[in-house]
Amino acid sequence: MSKRNALPALLLLVSSLAPAQTKPRARDLGVPFDGAPGPLNAITDVKGVEVGHTTLISGSGKLKVGEGPVRTGVTAVFPRGKDSIDPVFGAWFTLNGNGEMTGTTWVEDSGFLDGPVMITNTHSVGVVRDAVIAWRVKKAPPDEDGYYWSLPVVAETYDGDLNDINGFHVKPEHVFHALDTAHGGPVEEGNVGGGTGMICNEFKGGIGTASRVLDAKDGGYTVGVLVQCNYGLRSQLRIAGVPVGREIPDHTVHDTDIGSIIIVVATDAPLIPTQLKRVVRRATLGLGRDGSFSGDGSGDIFIAFSTANAGAAGSKGVHDLKMLANEQLNPIFLGTVQAVEEAVINAMVAAETMTGINDRTVIALPHDKLREVLKKYNRLAK
Amino acid sequence: MSKRNALPALLLLVSSLAPAQTKPRARDLGVPFDGAPGPLNAITDVKGVEVGHTTLISGSGKLKVGEGPVRTGVTAVFPRGKDSIDPVFGAWFTLNGNGEMTGTTWVEDSGFLDGPVMITNTHSVGVVRDAVIAWRVKKAPPDEDGYYWSLPVVAETYDGDLNDINGFHVKPEHVFHALDTAHGGPVEEGNVGGGTGMICNEFKGGIGTASRVLDAKDGGYTVGVLVQCNYGLRSQLRIAGVPVGREIPDHTVHDTDIGSIIIVVATDAPLIPTQLKRVVRRATLGLGRDGSFSGDGSGDIFIAFSTANAGAAGSKGVHDLKMLANEQLNPIFLGTVQAVEEAVINAMVAAETMTGINDRTVIALPHDKLREVLKKYNRLAK
Amino acid sequence: MSKRNALPALLLLVSSLAPAQTKPRARDLGVPFDGAPGPLNAITDVKGVEVGHTTLISGSGKLKVGEGPVRTGVTAVFPRGKDSIDPVFGAWFTLNGNGEMTGTTWVEDSGFLDGPVMITNTHSVGVVRDAVIAWRVKKAPPDEDGYYWSLPVVAETYDGDLNDINGFHVKPEHVFHALDTAHGGPVEEGNVGGGTGMICNEFKGGIGTASRVLDAKDGGYTVGVLVQCNYGLRSQLRIAGVPVGREIPDHTVHDTDIGSIIIVVATDAPLIPTQLKRVVRRATLGLGRDGSFSGDGSGDIFIAFSTANAGAAGSKGVHDLKMLANEQLNPIFLGTVQAVEEAVINAMVAAETMTGINDRTVIALPHDKLREVLKKYNRLAK
Amino acid sequence: MSKRNALPALLLLVSSLAPAQTKPRARDLGVPFDGAPGPLNAITDVKGVEVGHTTLISGSGKLKVGEGPVRTGVTAVFPRGKDSIDPVFGAWFTLNGNGEMTGTTWVEDSGFLDGPVMITNTHSVGVVRDAVIAWRVKKAPPDEDGYYWSLPVVAETYDGDLNDINGFHVKPEHVFHALDTAHGGPVEEGNVGGGTGMICNEFKGGIGTASRVLDAKDGGYTVGVLVQCNYGLRSQLRIAGVPVGREIPDHTVHDTDIGSIIIVVATDAPLIPTQLKRVVRRATLGLGRDGSFSGDGSGDIFIAFSTANAGAAGSKGVHDLKMLANEQLNPIFLGTVQAVEEAVINAMVAAETMTGINDRTVIALPHDKLREVLKKYNRLAK
Repeated sequence: MSKRNALPALLLLVSSLAPAQTKPRARDLGVPFDGAPGPLNAITDVKGVEVGHTTLISGSGKLKVGEGPVRTGVTAVFPRGKDSIDPVFGAWFTLNGNGEMTGTTWVEDSGFLDGPVMITNTHSVGVVRDAVIAWRVKKAPPDEDGYYWSLPVVAETYDGDLNDINGFHVKPEHVFHALDTAHGGPVEEGNVGGGTGMICNEFKGGIGTASRVLDAKDGGYTVGVLVQCNYGLRSQLRIAGVPVGREIPDHTVHDTDIGSIIIVVATDAPLIPTQLKRVVRRATLGLGRDGSFSGDGSGDIFIAFSTANAGAAGSKGVHDLKMLANEQLNPIFLGTVQAVEEAVINAMVAAETMTGINDRTVIALPHDKLREVLKKYNRLAK
Repeated sequence: MSKRNALPALLLLVSSLAPAQTKPRARDLGVPFDGAPGPLNAITDVKGVEVGHTTLISGSGKLKVGEGPVRTGVTAVFPRGKDSIDPVFGAWFTLNGNGEMTGTTWVEDSGFLDGPVMITNTHSVGVVRDAVIAWRVKKAPPDEDGYYWSLPVVAETYDGDLNDINGFHVKPEHVFHALDTAHGGPVEEGNVGGGTGMICNEFKGGIGTASRVLDAKDGGYTVGVLVQCNYGLRSQLRIAGVPVGREIPDHTVHDTDIGSIIIVVATDAPLIPTQLKRVVRRATLGLGRDGSFSGDGSGDIFIAFSTANAGAAGSKGVHDLKMLANEQLNPIFLGTVQAVEEAVINAMVAAETMTGINDRTVIALPHDKLREVLKKYNRLAK
Repeated sequence: MSKRNALPALLLLVSSLAPAQTKPRARDLGVPFDGAPGPLNAITDVKGVEVGHTTLISGSGKLKVGEGPVRTGVTAVFPRGKDSIDPVFGAWFTLNGNGEMTGTTWVEDSGFLDGPVMITNTHSVGVVRDAVIAWRVKKAPPDEDGYYWSLPVVAETYDGDLNDINGFHVKPEHVFHALDTAHGGPVEEGNVGGGTGMICNEFKGGIGTASRVLDAKDGGYTVGVLVQCNYGLRSQLRIAGVPVGREIPDHTVHDTDIGSIIIVVATDAPLIPTQLKRVVRRATLGLGRDGSFSGDGSGDIFIAFSTANAGAAGSKGVHDLKMLANEQLNPIFLGTVQAVEEAVINAMVAAETMTGINDRTVIALPHDKLREVLKKYNRLAK
Repeated sequence: MSKRNALPALLLLVSSLAPAQTKPRARDLGVPFDGAPGPLNAITDVKGVEVGHTTLISGSGKLKVGEGPVRTGVTAVFPRGKDSIDPVFGAWFTLNGNGEMTGTTWVEDSGFLDGPVMITNTHSVGVVRDAVIAWRVKKAPPDEDGYYWSLPVVAETYDGDLNDINGFHVKPEHVFHALDTAHGGPVEEGNVGGGTGMICNEFKGGIGTASRVLDAKDGGYTVGVLVQCNYGLRSQLRIAGVPVGREIPDHTVHDTDIGSIIIVVATDAPLIPTQLKRVVRRATLGLGRDGSFSGDGSGDIFIAFSTANAGAAGSKGVHDLKMLANEQLNPIFLGTVQAVEEAVINAMVAAETMTGINDRTVIALPHDKLREVLKKYNRLAK
């Protein structure tokens, strides 16, 4: 780890090699999801995708702005891995716009996502954005005139209920750490990275992931999803169609829908931006299955990319592309809906009860109670 | 009825005063929907809204293009009733664009919906559009130079599985009839109007409606929804979260997701177009609850309007408007999601088994079987 | 010509083989446009593009609705010629939405334009739309179940100042004629087809066209533009930057900006829909050069397509595409702006003084006066 | 000035009270613009609007990343002045998306612009964004739970041709200074604020402004425009329709279109967001008059707001609004086009020749030569 990654004391580092998957996930608890997940049931089932987190947890007790308590972080999702500078085709969609995802104007117009997707808290979008540029400048030298261009994609949800958000605790070195430690394989879920201090359906939320693999006859493509989950009212929560939220009414924390969700959809299917725009819009349907009505305060912003068509962003001449026929998109649409539906639940299942600023506590979704409710509605899978 | 409404023999008229509601609706069968419906549980709970249908059913047996069998029609939804020419604020949204809704370019840019929303079959959009203009020209004289302007909103779904769609059986007089007979009160559902020949989740589909009334503390507003329902795969159908489709696997008709859904959302809440755009986008979440993944072949196109702010479209000077605060939108968002969720199920519950071209039959959702499945999953409400 | 094309007496047919180009065009009059036009300086310089017009002119004197006078028509633009059913990549844009272009919802979502672009008057969009479906049904048989799908693109501008627009004089046979007689080669301009009764900058307007050919080093691609021109105030008109409108203040006809412009942009450059969306948005910049401010009453709606990537709309498997690098788009952007700028002027130069309903007369742009004004401002090219 | 505004040595402060208007502006040089400007011919003619700049100029010679030379800054535009926290109705538009404007997702969905519009260089968007939040946190205390929300609007253009952009020289204190010194009255133009190091049509560019006042019969409203101007090829530049760029071919600096333009449109007309969206799109037409074709590398992003309807963003109940009739928008559309056309030229007229990194020099538009060219084309106004 280079000198710039020497992290300050307040960082409680969740090792990127931790056996994260020893924790049960939603389907381990018997939630009956549809469709076939990939080997990791994670966005990293899409070959090349790497995820890195920096998790910042320190202090306790009364909020003192600038001092803590700190419950925040930053997450990086690289479409082609941290060592590639080859953009991917991408597209984005806003279900409810009370949030930020920088860089999307150029994603929309160019059809390309250049660099990682970063997710952090609302008040740290700026520091993360500029740090991504700084990191890239260090990784790849500018041209002889010092010319360098960058429009990073940085999204956020609000963690000020648990975190000293106005203390601006995310620093450039935390961004560098998430970028430098991004990796394939299992993805840490729950109270990690940008998701550290998040709340979902009034349970502890955070990062969740899932994937689907299509049948060989449908091309055998993979769709992977990662969410930073911070939205929703308990009373609306459905899991696999079951009204779980209403059955576990304790320890709610909101009066109305508050918070947001950022959704990243990855696929290796050869989709052009027009098609990715259709894919990313389907994330809404997955949220619908989980009971969301997307409140006014939500920043429900989604981005999708395809790792196919390497090299398509080259600046010269005419490129050869592959494009899946529009009529073949249905399994990808369905896989996206299913993976979003599951990734949200995975986030809540993985997250652990957290106490943050002013001793405010948000409980984890109780696993045993979840199984009880599923059983009550004859939906317990195992 | 005027001379121009003398309808040809092929019209089997569903009387607009028929006791339509003697048929059970979804909640009569024990489907446990959330939220409080209005007195009619229909789009007409929004004061001023009127709905008219022309239903065309004739012939049977082998398709002979131009002769039948005919299973089609046209539906008219007037925001302020058929005698008003006062536009309403409106907004639209496309979940999947494999369909048509004319007039939306001006809805988008002006913020107004001028005239009724018409719904018919895919190949009759044109005749309906021009007939709406002709009807309006007759209703309200053009100015002294003969100047008249019109950009009607006409939407469609495809009924060619049951109907001789290339026979172009919808004629101007059928359009006039739907317009002239639009009325408040109970709304006919199922195999009526534009929904006559439609298929939904591989059961017989068609027209459905539902409404929600907000608490007095939330303003007491009403949200009403009407759908022309022609989308979906049986295997995906969820009713109140229960996997009903998978439990009733018989008599399916599609290999892949085919068809479309048109959704009309009405409210009396004082919303400006920017807000209606947010409302109409939520229709997707209601479809998500019902299990839709919005296939490539779907024309899933939605329009919303507010009956508040009468007179706002006047061409002179500065208008006084009312606007509900953005922070007060959540109950309207939730009511929209719930009413869409229910209207789709109402369409299937009301529709009856139909045999169309080439003796093809699409079965109705069996009511008793639905109750059985709900009971199996401990979700039968009564 | 088939029986269905036997046209009624009111049709004054402008022969599609008429020596249209014996009339001077804008650059023949010395207007100094930038860039290099193709051999025809027409949209048909893009290989495969065919244009057909039906022109309806009959009667004179006082308006009698349904009887005339008639000054209208319909124009068809086929991307790959009238005998191809292979869709092209396409994209559209609205500068001001007070108009109609049907079929665009599916263009937007699929990325394909399927069939011709039709242009007519405001009140005839419906008849043209359904007639295009009927024509296609006759050209290519439906499948064995009678299954057929169609979402035609039909645009309009308003000709009710000169034409008996509420007489609905465009009939299906006129649509068939425009489709059947579409051809490559020189394109008739001025008072023809959908442009017959149109007014532009308070001169007689109508159909105009122009093209640009890129340098070989930029790929040698062609950009072609066709406009149906019905917008603008005289006082705002600039030609090659010269305030021509203000210098020819006579015989104006509007109080405020009225009318619309439909713009079709064709290219053979291998552009994907995301790129065509950028191209089509540039049409606005061409209108800006001509002085438009796009008034509230305008339906300024544009569509672009690329004739490259034949076969990309096939419903099976994965397609091989070609895509020009984003960084190579500048010459295409510039060519589009230039060709739009010129096509509008060509429409006015070609159109001839017309007297329509109630003996209303709209004068043609006087060629000699135009030359005088250009000379006054030292901009006369020859 | 508070302690936090003590600026480092590298800041060469352009006094906010400097007699900026002693420099000639475009119309002082005889450029014949249309329409009636306000008293200042500036965005600040819209009552309440305040503009602040921080200009950073230091060093010379060879680029040494992190040390300079520095030619950059930041500009703040407050719709209701720096002491108001009352949002305004707003809307945005992208002509070409190769740039950044944060906060627009919520502008789009809420219809409100909350806080100032900030403009800086591409690599400083992040620091400016977070600093705006920090500044607001200090200005208005968060609620008792420390809850605070912010989605600042920060835009950029690229100044790396003259500035050490990878040195990240804009610091939070520079942002605070621009915010704290924002003022009404004359607006500094040219090499100031975010525009310090910008290039326009290969002349020195930067900040420009202009306004139009409508006739009393049209409501007497004011439209004001401010641009940060960094786009364009010399060969395309038109001034008042005259091909000025081609007539002054010396000292060009680009091979292709490079750079961007940010446009801010302010008005006191009572427009709702739907209408502002139409206004902001018209900025394109103003650029069209100046000859832009909006190259691939451009970030041409525009935002508009209305200072009417104070208090409309309040979170409770129903608000009373005023809305100008759509049919009355034409003078506002035209005024916007004219003010954009002029503001761009004002930026070039005000900017002075600058030498930046590696001794690269960009020349100012020569005033005498401009007059000569206007005269040649008989367009010199005085």
